Amino acid sequence: MAGPRRLLLVSNSTLHGGGYLDHCQQNISHFFGKDVKRVLFVPYALHDRDAYTKTARDKFQTLGYEVDGIHEAPDPVGAVRKAEAIFIGGGNTFRLLKSLYDNKVVSEIRRRVLEDGVPYMGSSAGTNVSTISINTTNDMPIVYPPSFSAIGLVPFNINPHYLDPNPNSRHMGETREQRITQYHEEPDTPCVLGLREGSMLLVEGNKATLLGTTKARLFTRGKPSVEYDPGSDLSFLLTH
Amino acid sequence: MAGPRRLLLVSNSTLHGGGYLDHCQQNISHFFGKDVKRVLFVPYALHDRDAYTKTARDKFQTLGYEVDGIHEAPDPVGAVRKAEAIFIGGGNTFRLLKSLYDNKVVSEIRRRVLEDGVPYMGSSAGTNVSTISINTTNDMPIVYPPSFSAIGLVPFNINPHYLDPNPNSRHMGETREQRITQYHEEPDTPCVLGLREGSMLLVEGNKATLLGTTKARLFTRGKPSVEYDPGSDLSFLLTH
Repeated sequence: MAGPRRLLLVSNSTLHGGGYLDHCQQNISHFFGKDVKRVLFVPYALHDRDAYTKTARDKFQTLGYEVDGIHEAPDPVGAVRKAEAIFIGGGNTFRLLKSLYDNKVVSEIRRRVLEDGVPYMGSSAGTNVSTISINTTNDMPIVYPPSFSAIGLVPFNINPHYLDPNPNSRHMGETREQRITQYHEEPDTPCVLGLREGSMLLVEGNKATLLGTTKARLFTRGKPSVEYDPGSDLSFLLTH
Repeated sequence: MAGPRRLLLVSNSTLHGGGYLDHCQQNISHFFGKDVKRVLFVPYALHDRDAYTKTARDKFQTLGYEVDGIHEAPDPVGAVRKAEAIFIGGGNTFRLLKSLYDNKVVSEIRRRVLEDGVPYMGSSAGTNVSTISINTTNDMPIVYPPSFSAIGLVPFNINPHYLDPNPNSRHMGETREQRITQYHEEPDTPCVLGLREGSMLLVEGNKATLLGTTKARLFTRGKPSVEYDPGSDLSFLLTH
């Protein structure tokens, strides 16, 4: 099944007022298509892996796909080796990345997606770990992973759930933009694509397209940030 | 100058509508008192250490204290060894902790505070690094420290800038309480004191008192969270 890299990187699993993955279900159906029958689900980002897998399974069955939880397999690496498609769900990014390393599947997922063309869907934390590193996650560092380097399916970073400043807030914590600016004060840091809730990035080979209903904001070290509308061609991000 | 441990752990450097450290300046004066003449300031949490030290110096001079920036000293460990008092300012907690390790001052600060009774003030990130670990920071993991273990001046963790859920928000990222709950899903995790902006913890030997103008919320693994009013005696946190 060798083919070009195919990724669907979703900002958020649930959009306000909707159910789990409702807002992107048409994108999911279009992305996995009719050839995929079973999706390997990685529930490592949440504590209760069985309950999380049931949530994903129930949703994906309504779209015509069977779901296998990677934690249900006797050998996680073997499960990745025979996967038709992979979906890594959201939750805590640190817990997720640590579990990916603990189960030794980071490089095998990378190989399957980049060499074998296995379609990869990520949501929230599952989108973070698909990039160069988890340096731009919003999550609390509840566990210590052996590295912040991630699967590296794209050569930039993503900030999911990207949030504009609230002008009425009295809270003095840093805005999201300030946090990403702090990241870019560090040397040799890559672009960060801020995906607002409701947006997602579709990557097919060397073509990247912004999908969904909200705009995205791109942060490049040493340059002003830029807004992109849904439908924008962001393929240039793949050639850095 | 041996004496009991003395800590002033402030949630936030700036309160909405006020200037830098304005909201806690009386607490600072009372904490350092008249015996302290010079405060060793650690500006590692922000990128521009000179500018940050100037901000701290200007403020502390109005309170009658001279400030030395640790990065101005030829030998940071030596600067800690001869410090009369230490203040670690806020910014990015990951950058701060990594710099503390890079400069090999973590254990020396611990020794000076716990063995020599050198007064320690922290604000925001400087409060995070004074606890067991930085596992409950709110900051973006822009750099990878060699450990999340921190200076360990108290046997619990703190979440600075603690924030109540906003019932009007449509944003679907986890609330602060959900994040701390995820931390407590991990085994053997300590109490987390959520310090709202405007609050601070004063530790004198084995006595801990909540100061400031806002309540704090205490999260204990496996138990309901509890609210504490300013003035509350939280000494029990020191004996876990």
